[in-house]
Amino acid sequence: MPHIPEAVEQLKAHLAPIVDLRHAAEVLEWDQQTHMPPGGGRARAEQLATLTRLIHEMFTSPRTQELLEAAERTVEDLDPDSDEAALVRMTRRDYDRATKLPSQFVAERRRASSLSIEAWRQARPANDFAAFRPHLQQMVDYARRTADYLGYAEHPYDAVLDLYEPLMTSREVTELFARLREEIVPLVRAIAAAGAVDDSVLHQEYDEEKQQAFALEVVQAFGYDLLRGRLDRAPHPFAAGFSRGDARITTRFDRRFFNTAVFAIFHEAGHAMYHQGLDPALERTPLAGGASLGVHESQSRMWENLVGRSRPFWRHYFPRLRELFSEQLAGVDAEGFYRAVNKVQPSLIRVEADEVTYNLHIILRFELEKSLMDGSLRVEDAPEAWNARMAEYLGVTPPTDADGLMQDIHWASGLIGYFPTYTLGNVMAAQLFAAALRARPALPEDFARGEFRALLGWLREHVHRHGRKFFPQDLLQRATGSRLTPEPYLRYLWEKFGEIYGVGAPEMAGAGES
Amino acid sequence: MPHIPEAVEQLKAHLAPIVDLRHAAEVLEWDQQTHMPPGGGRARAEQLATLTRLIHEMFTSPRTQELLEAAERTVEDLDPDSDEAALVRMTRRDYDRATKLPSQFVAERRRASSLSIEAWRQARPANDFAAFRPHLQQMVDYARRTADYLGYAEHPYDAVLDLYEPLMTSREVTELFARLREEIVPLVRAIAAAGAVDDSVLHQEYDEEKQQAFALEVVQAFGYDLLRGRLDRAPHPFAAGFSRGDARITTRFDRRFFNTAVFAIFHEAGHAMYHQGLDPALERTPLAGGASLGVHESQSRMWENLVGRSRPFWRHYFPRLRELFSEQLAGVDAEGFYRAVNKVQPSLIRVEADEVTYNLHIILRFELEKSLMDGSLRVEDAPEAWNARMAEYLGVTPPTDADGLMQDIHWASGLIGYFPTYTLGNVMAAQLFAAALRARPALPEDFARGEFRALLGWLREHVHRHGRKFFPQDLLQRATGSRLTPEPYLRYLWEKFGEIYGVGAPEMAGAGES
Repeated sequence: MPHIPEAVEQLKAHLAPIVDLRHAAEVLEWDQQTHMPPGGGRARAEQLATLTRLIHEMFTSPRTQELLEAAERTVEDLDPDSDEAALVRMTRRDYDRATKLPSQFVAERRRASSLSIEAWRQARPANDFAAFRPHLQQMVDYARRTADYLGYAEHPYDAVLDLYEPLMTSREVTELFARLREEIVPLVRAIAAAGAVDDSVLHQEYDEEKQQAFALEVVQAFGYDLLRGRLDRAPHPFAAGFSRGDARITTRFDRRFFNTAVFAIFHEAGHAMYHQGLDPALERTPLAGGASLGVHESQSRMWENLVGRSRPFWRHYFPRLRELFSEQLAGVDAEGFYRAVNKVQPSLIRVEADEVTYNLHIILRFELEKSLMDGSLRVEDAPEAWNARMAEYLGVTPPTDADGLMQDIHWASGLIGYFPTYTLGNVMAAQLFAAALRARPALPEDFARGEFRALLGWLREHVHRHGRKFFPQDLLQRATGSRLTPEPYLRYLWEKFGEIYGVGAPEMAGAGES
Repeated sequence: MPHIPEAVEQLKAHLAPIVDLRHAAEVLEWDQQTHMPPGGGRARAEQLATLTRLIHEMFTSPRTQELLEAAERTVEDLDPDSDEAALVRMTRRDYDRATKLPSQFVAERRRASSLSIEAWRQARPANDFAAFRPHLQQMVDYARRTADYLGYAEHPYDAVLDLYEPLMTSREVTELFARLREEIVPLVRAIAAAGAVDDSVLHQEYDEEKQQAFALEVVQAFGYDLLRGRLDRAPHPFAAGFSRGDARITTRFDRRFFNTAVFAIFHEAGHAMYHQGLDPALERTPLAGGASLGVHESQSRMWENLVGRSRPFWRHYFPRLRELFSEQLAGVDAEGFYRAVNKVQPSLIRVEADEVTYNLHIILRFELEKSLMDGSLRVEDAPEAWNARMAEYLGVTPPTDADGLMQDIHWASGLIGYFPTYTLGNVMAAQLFAAALRARPALPEDFARGEFRALLGWLREHVHRHGRKFFPQDLLQRATGSRLTPEPYLRYLWEKFGEIYGVGAPEMAGAGES
């Protein structure tokens, strides 16, 4: 039997180029979303299909199995929390799942997804669902075939959900979302009855360069390192990490609405700091990445909302913002601005939704995705189902499909099963923040001084450095002392928005359901 | 024996993913030069090394040999000018050369080159040759080992030159350059004696956005399609083609010197139009690309100099430019501006050199490269050799190595053997332009009307569409009726600059040497 680290080293050496190729593909995707001219779409689809097929072939090769088996024999005696044990464990899981998918299928799915994104990009501004429909149908078919290949215990949705949130089932999500809806619907009603917050201050002319300067100043104070990152524009903001030394963010600007760019930059910087905080020892291994999309989203939501939409944050940053926008902010103070950026109002567009109603957008998408996956909803009926549910949950009806089910890039990209992770991220963010606050009760005072190192330090220690070493629930257990629970999040929502709108929390129901 | 196209189709299907990966690597390189943050360098080096190794392994696999042999048997009866015959011929040549290089060597060379570029990027602004020297030494060593692997008849330089200019030898280049020097040195002396042209108009404050708007207006009139391209900033301007649908250009700006950005944009657009003009049937084949770097450069020089620095061009565009820069251009007319952008003056920096002295920069680099390759010059002595030859050829001495041998990215990237192609491009551009002018004598009148379709059409027909189908000399023979000859270029230089400076051409020597 070889010396223990050696078999693992061999496995790592075999996997490192595969990780390189994944990052290379991510560079091509980043470019496609930020800079690629329209004419590049077809060739880019081929390039990504080829890379995807190769990555899949290399990873599912008999050589991986052979090295993995050797490594498995050597790590039995190791601490299960060691990098080596985690590497072998995660690689086994990845391998067993990847080998269920034919390389040809993976490549075709990738090519179709690239072309579908291009079609969506044309169809959305033209509000042309008919042009987009065959692509959406294809994406649903690919998701269903993926589920068939991967297998599932209860519902085909379980298979695709697990791609983004390992070990989570659609039953658990259904229960969690039911608990959220049970609290959020009355909260939204109470807020509506309490009368609107005035956010007209946000709807003025805000110079884009100054918006960007302000947001970059803030995220650098958060701890986002621009020597290992950069900001670009993209129609749909996202973050991408090609290494811990190259974690980029994107945003879009609206000169007539303050929130769009600034909070997107806070949000994406939260993702990017997760990339930047990885333990260098995990670079070029399959553990370089986030524990799940939910955990990733917890980091972006943390900085966007729990920090960036907090009262102490604006106590510190409002005077700075007023230096940049003295005219626009003449008639408002820090408290008024804090209330404005936290205005709750049902609306059409998910990415512009407030913290409270946001989750209803997700619950809607989750429900439709499940129905599309099990065939109880047909693609051609999806726009109508979307609009009906918008009316039911949020009391608004999209005037067009562009503002309805074509608003997001996810389905166009084939990312079915992904949406729930946004709300999971909200829930995890509150749970992690509560734990960080127990460790350092002075966090709000830190924020009020423009000081974020204690929070970032806690996140680096408990979340970032681990990369993909632990499953989401295990990571939460280690970091917070309990598995996923919605109660800190619900408490946060009621306390924060109850206070802003002067509405009382009902007696908190027992944290039973999820 | 299989049906003829079928064996070729199989070979093409085998090669297409390799071409995809090459383009993917080019996207990563483009990103490295334009957008990548400093922290991304190390991981990018690994990503490129992995891609390079894979491309090399896939291409040099026994499967390629097998498919190639089958295809070779089937194309014997085909027209040697057919796409199929050319594909098989070029693939055979590429394959026989690639199989001489071990994959490991190719990957290591690529990784070292990425790291060397990063080191150069730090060392150049700091004028720190000592920090750059070990990297340059490595690049020279890699070039020499490459030559040893590839083999050569006469001089190790032949092996690396052939990488960029197929079938060209250093003896031919030496003879050609001797002929150029024989004419250019007296021309430079005659110009110096004639007194300087006033180009102070170019050295004023020119708003960057307006520079860009003007240059983009011009290159679109040339025929550069921005729906299949884009412009970015890079410290060292370059063009990149990831497909005929995605051919990008870069530039840098100098607010105090008109020429820097505008002529770089003309130049790079010339390269990009070559990419955009490829026959769609050659996409995703090894024939997608330029016939050689010299031929590529002929396209960029054509648009930069033979068009963009011509009198009829400025007759048309000067009034437009004066609309944008009325203050700066108040005291000058089209003729004066034409003379200013054609000012000849020996200078330190190659990329800012005028059309006449430019070639002396190249001849110097070619001579030093040859000496580095055969060991007659040591890397540590290179700065001194550089400076001595600058004094000899151009009468100027670089005050720093940053303005001396560290000015270009090429050696830092390991691109030894590349520089001669710039002057080959100048020579070919004049030869091609003379042929285009024979086909359509009204080209100058076209330019004076801002009309470039006839020239672009001729280039598409005789150069662009063929991609890599023909060797450079064969392409020239087809397009112009003769192999490479410096005489049209020398005639062009004497006529144009003789006229501007009022100096007479000596009797043209017979076009003997090359």
